[in-house]
Amino acid sequence: MPGAKASTDGSRADVAEVVRTHLRDIPDFPTPGVVFKDFTPLIADGPAMKTLVMDIAGRYAGRVDVVVGIEARGFILGAAVAYELGLGMVPIRKAGKLPGQTLKESYSLEYGHAEIEVHTDAFEPGQRVLIIDDVLATGGTAEATAALVERAGAHVTAIEVVLELAFLGGRRRLGGRDVNAILTV
Amino acid sequence: MPGAKASTDGSRADVAEVVRTHLRDIPDFPTPGVVFKDFTPLIADGPAMKTLVMDIAGRYAGRVDVVVGIEARGFILGAAVAYELGLGMVPIRKAGKLPGQTLKESYSLEYGHAEIEVHTDAFEPGQRVLIIDDVLATGGTAEATAALVERAGAHVTAIEVVLELAFLGGRRRLGGRDVNAILTV
Repeated sequence: MPGAKASTDGSRADVAEVVRTHLRDIPDFPTPGVVFKDFTPLIADGPAMKTLVMDIAGRYAGRVDVVVGIEARGFILGAAVAYELGLGMVPIRKAGKLPGQTLKESYSLEYGHAEIEVHTDAFEPGQRVLIIDDVLATGGTAEATAALVERAGAHVTAIEVVLELAFLGGRRRLGGRDVNAILTV
Repeated sequence: MPGAKASTDGSRADVAEVVRTHLRDIPDFPTPGVVFKDFTPLIADGPAMKTLVMDIAGRYAGRVDVVVGIEARGFILGAAVAYELGLGMVPIRKAGKLPGQTLKESYSLEYGHAEIEVHTDAFEPGQRVLIIDDVLATGGTAEATAALVERAGAHVTAIEVVLELAFLGGRRRLGGRDVNAILTV
């Protein structure tokens, strides 16, 4: 069980390997020619998730006040990391899903165009925020999320993703922000 | 901190009260005349989530092999409960979102019509499944989810929801299934 090793001696290479061996390539999804990285085998493996979540939580314990999870796959890892840290989670949702007053950002993404929202009262002023998502692709979602967090009065401490698709250049779009990827391809 | 009390002496009334005090009523969402129960204040409160998650996990420890979370809000609680139990989570998603081969169910729901999917290979044969969602309304989503789990070869041990809207009769639609709600209104 690789999870047990990585969660005790915890080297970054171990955690990256756990992620790498639990992702599945799905060709031609969502469109022909794209190879989609499927996270469901990772999410379905309790010990693998434990290794991943403890690695992330260990990096931010005491440094953040709240976790932001991005709809929809970012909710899964975001909720588990928030739970491990004993913190709350704020959801960033696609437009029209949050019931209260919201702030909105529009952006382009790998497969089209999107709008995301956050509740205007989601944060206490100055709260330190860890943004979590599964994949960093072009960086559009992460950039728009960071903008929403700051417009809502909080501070973005770091952006953590499981997988960075480096050839899409998302990190450059995020300028000087603290971006961490467990696995980069 | 109500979370500390309920997570140690753990009466059901305490947990229900934690949920009740953390939900927010949003009038006229998503349509005029509907009062939407907003879970974001609950999710944003780390100790309250701890109380809720430990209550649910305590009920199913040793009785289930995997947790199913229903997109999108069910992902949040489902992921945290799976993490607490040391189990994996299988996502049930809206049609077109899962990249692999899927099984699909169509159903009517409180505000319209929907289709949900699960990966055909999401479960080991006979795995015992805990289905988690935030709200039990008409029961359409839960019924379709249970059908998908069984078509995929697993066994539905129980359906757990945070809030049951009893006036919509969802529990009747779920027949003899083991359905548990933290708070019923």
